[in-house]
Amino acid sequence: MNADLPRNTVVRLSQYRRLLEKYRFMDEPYIFSHDLARMLDLKPVNVRHDLMLLGMQGDRRKGYSINALLEKISERIDRPGREIILVGMGRLGLSLIDYLQESDSRLRICAAFDIDPQKVNQHCESVPCYSITDLPDFARERSMTTAILAVPPDDVSDILPILLDAGIRGILNYTSERLAVPGNVIVRNVDIVTYLEEIKYFISQ
Amino acid sequence: MNADLPRNTVVRLSQYRRLLEKYRFMDEPYIFSHDLARMLDLKPVNVRHDLMLLGMQGDRRKGYSINALLEKISERIDRPGREIILVGMGRLGLSLIDYLQESDSRLRICAAFDIDPQKVNQHCESVPCYSITDLPDFARERSMTTAILAVPPDDVSDILPILLDAGIRGILNYTSERLAVPGNVIVRNVDIVTYLEEIKYFISQ
Repeated sequence: MNADLPRNTVVRLSQYRRLLEKYRFMDEPYIFSHDLARMLDLKPVNVRHDLMLLGMQGDRRKGYSINALLEKISERIDRPGREIILVGMGRLGLSLIDYLQESDSRLRICAAFDIDPQKVNQHCESVPCYSITDLPDFARERSMTTAILAVPPDDVSDILPILLDAGIRGILNYTSERLAVPGNVIVRNVDIVTYLEEIKYFISQ
Repeated sequence: MNADLPRNTVVRLSQYRRLLEKYRFMDEPYIFSHDLARMLDLKPVNVRHDLMLLGMQGDRRKGYSINALLEKISERIDRPGREIILVGMGRLGLSLIDYLQESDSRLRICAAFDIDPQKVNQHCESVPCYSITDLPDFARERSMTTAILAVPPDDVSDILPILLDAGIRGILNYTSERLAVPGNVIVRNVDIVTYLEEIKYFISQ
């Protein structure tokens, strides 16, 4: 499958979908690109460009059909496989399970892995937790490609090679460590400190 | 204080600092901009541009002095006030307290607010938890401007007006809801579903 859309477009398409899902059950739902931009605090020119890349045609009087837009977004950005593994079943890991379950997302955490014997072979929020040593077999058997990393920073250097050996090629990194990965592995860092420093910088005095 | 740096520069300066803090105790620590770019998976041209905006001069043979760089970054991006409030003391909130305490960041969560009577007037991880009704007085007395929002999505519409009335002008939004705020309020959304959808899109097939 081609990954030919620009990164920022993919991010925005995902955001459009999350927002528009709430409007799809309206009677004859339509939206103008400038309203979509305003609601998501984006530049109208970027939104128009994204919709053009999707091959969408708006109606001059009504705007874009929300249902057609949702269908087109799913067609273009969704990939087979809804399942994600979670590495680290601490407070953060548990809160991520809650979050994804509540979000109505098509993605779901199918298993968690931890080193703590008290957590291994338990279920938390209906997600089974296994030993980290079981991860390679589990990931290979189910062709899992995506993991959320939510372990303490000191454990990263031990756990990252296990993920890479197991064939994981996409990592959402919740640790404060930078991950050194081969070029074919995608990492996105959720960096709370940077978010907060940026917010504080731009708060008007 | 001027907020004259571009948003992406502020984000990267914060990332440089996090990385370089680890090297500052080396003997005579220097780094080349292309090494900094490689370690953070950034474009070398962006890193050079950021360092130029800081007014840094590199040494042709050794690169940039790490200690001078750290000092300059702090001078340019840090703002008075290290304290942040946390709204929502659930699993996610607790994991954010842990994260910030472990991160060696200069920022710290000074108080949490919740509606659950079982949590109110307790300490969690040395952070006091108060009733959400105490938030306005607390925020005004201490001139707090920044909050992390980690409440269930259904509570957002009740709690957001309280934050805005209390003078909060920067919000790190961990909920799946979009926040409608006035133009002088900064919101950054931590959007797990979008991160995951983007990762899955770009994983090489």
